[in-house]
Amino acid sequence: MFKTVIIGTGNVAFHLHKALKASNAVEVRAVSSRSDLAKLPMADVYIIAVSDDAVAKVSSEIRSMNALVVHTSGSVAMEGLASNNRKGVFYPLQTFSKEKDLDFKTIPICLEAEDEKDLQLLEKLAKAVSEKVYHIDSEQRKALHLAAVFVNNFVNHLYHIGSDICTEHDVPFEVLKPLIQETAEKVVTLSPKQAQTGPAKRNDLETIKKHVHSLSNSTYRKIYELLTNSISNTYGGKEL
Amino acid sequence: MFKTVIIGTGNVAFHLHKALKASNAVEVRAVSSRSDLAKLPMADVYIIAVSDDAVAKVSSEIRSMNALVVHTSGSVAMEGLASNNRKGVFYPLQTFSKEKDLDFKTIPICLEAEDEKDLQLLEKLAKAVSEKVYHIDSEQRKALHLAAVFVNNFVNHLYHIGSDICTEHDVPFEVLKPLIQETAEKVVTLSPKQAQTGPAKRNDLETIKKHVHSLSNSTYRKIYELLTNSISNTYGGKEL
Repeated sequence: MFKTVIIGTGNVAFHLHKALKASNAVEVRAVSSRSDLAKLPMADVYIIAVSDDAVAKVSSEIRSMNALVVHTSGSVAMEGLASNNRKGVFYPLQTFSKEKDLDFKTIPICLEAEDEKDLQLLEKLAKAVSEKVYHIDSEQRKALHLAAVFVNNFVNHLYHIGSDICTEHDVPFEVLKPLIQETAEKVVTLSPKQAQTGPAKRNDLETIKKHVHSLSNSTYRKIYELLTNSISNTYGGKEL
Repeated sequence: MFKTVIIGTGNVAFHLHKALKASNAVEVRAVSSRSDLAKLPMADVYIIAVSDDAVAKVSSEIRSMNALVVHTSGSVAMEGLASNNRKGVFYPLQTFSKEKDLDFKTIPICLEAEDEKDLQLLEKLAKAVSEKVYHIDSEQRKALHLAAVFVNNFVNHLYHIGSDICTEHDVPFEVLKPLIQETAEKVVTLSPKQAQTGPAKRNDLETIKKHVHSLSNSTYRKIYELLTNSISNTYGGKEL
């Protein structure tokens, strides 16, 4: 039986614990808060699931015992871990909230380790909870994390702007939800470049001008213009 | 039996025809191209599903017969139809491609008509193909169309930027797809404002600076900065 210890009490720790508990191949020997690291039980892998800026400190406080210690962060390099133990990364690429259930099996787990044997160990652990396991080095993970900001944080903010426009004009945001779902589903089978539609791609300057004119919020107007020009550039069209 | 004629041969006409054909309550008497309007059969509703800038001309070429003529466009006002017949709008709010099947039942249909009786007629037609029927006037529809550009066209472009960053760093775009799906699913139950996460919301300036620094494409850098500031403003944080 594979033995693990989880360090952390946030959303990632919560969902990871749930998934590991449900697996027959893994025993979670403890879930520890970051302030109580003196008496950690023996385990094959120690998983640090704390905020990015606490990873270095927490890892340095785990006693030296030649154990495999991994963090779960998209933006911290593997070298950000203290050198008192073996190092690795176990990064589940998903947006986690406690109030929203997730199917862990579908979450990509991005793995990294200093040597091949530890990588195999992590692969065994990852495959116990997910069907999607990738080997991703620190440079690639940095790029993934940046890309995730665009497709998650920024996309969600565009939903917010859409919702704001609806509220301003007394239209239920409800009406846009099937479009939001379908937009996400389309890129399962088409590349985003193939899936693109709309006035910016068509270079429909008349519609674009009307839209810009009707936006009363100046930040939203700037976002409209910048994204329209970026789409236009992608397809060789004219800028505004 | 409800009798309709569809004018147009594009994606909307294609999917709408498929949905209307499948309904027991509706008979599609003809699907006509825009160049062949002389011999249209009698019908309760004539549905013009052509490009936005062709709506006025096509509607003016339908002979005067006191029929109900509607267009399917998000950005054309009802008054954009010629006055030779009764006017209305039947706007299915979704992104249509011929190669991607759609469940028409889930597509919101936004209706408008000059008088109550025609609105009821359109409601009957809409309910034959969809479970989501809304009364939306021309001003509201204009706002919806603008909001749709943000949550569809612009969101898809952010997917493209994410995909571009992946390609540049030799990471499969595949890895981001579950995050893309979950981001869209989250706003089914949470408002986008509640669902927001990430460095911009947390005002994590160190991560933001690293991200900006690592973006080699200057347009993507501008988009990153503008959207980060817009998120920051939404939550009362500091600007870059």
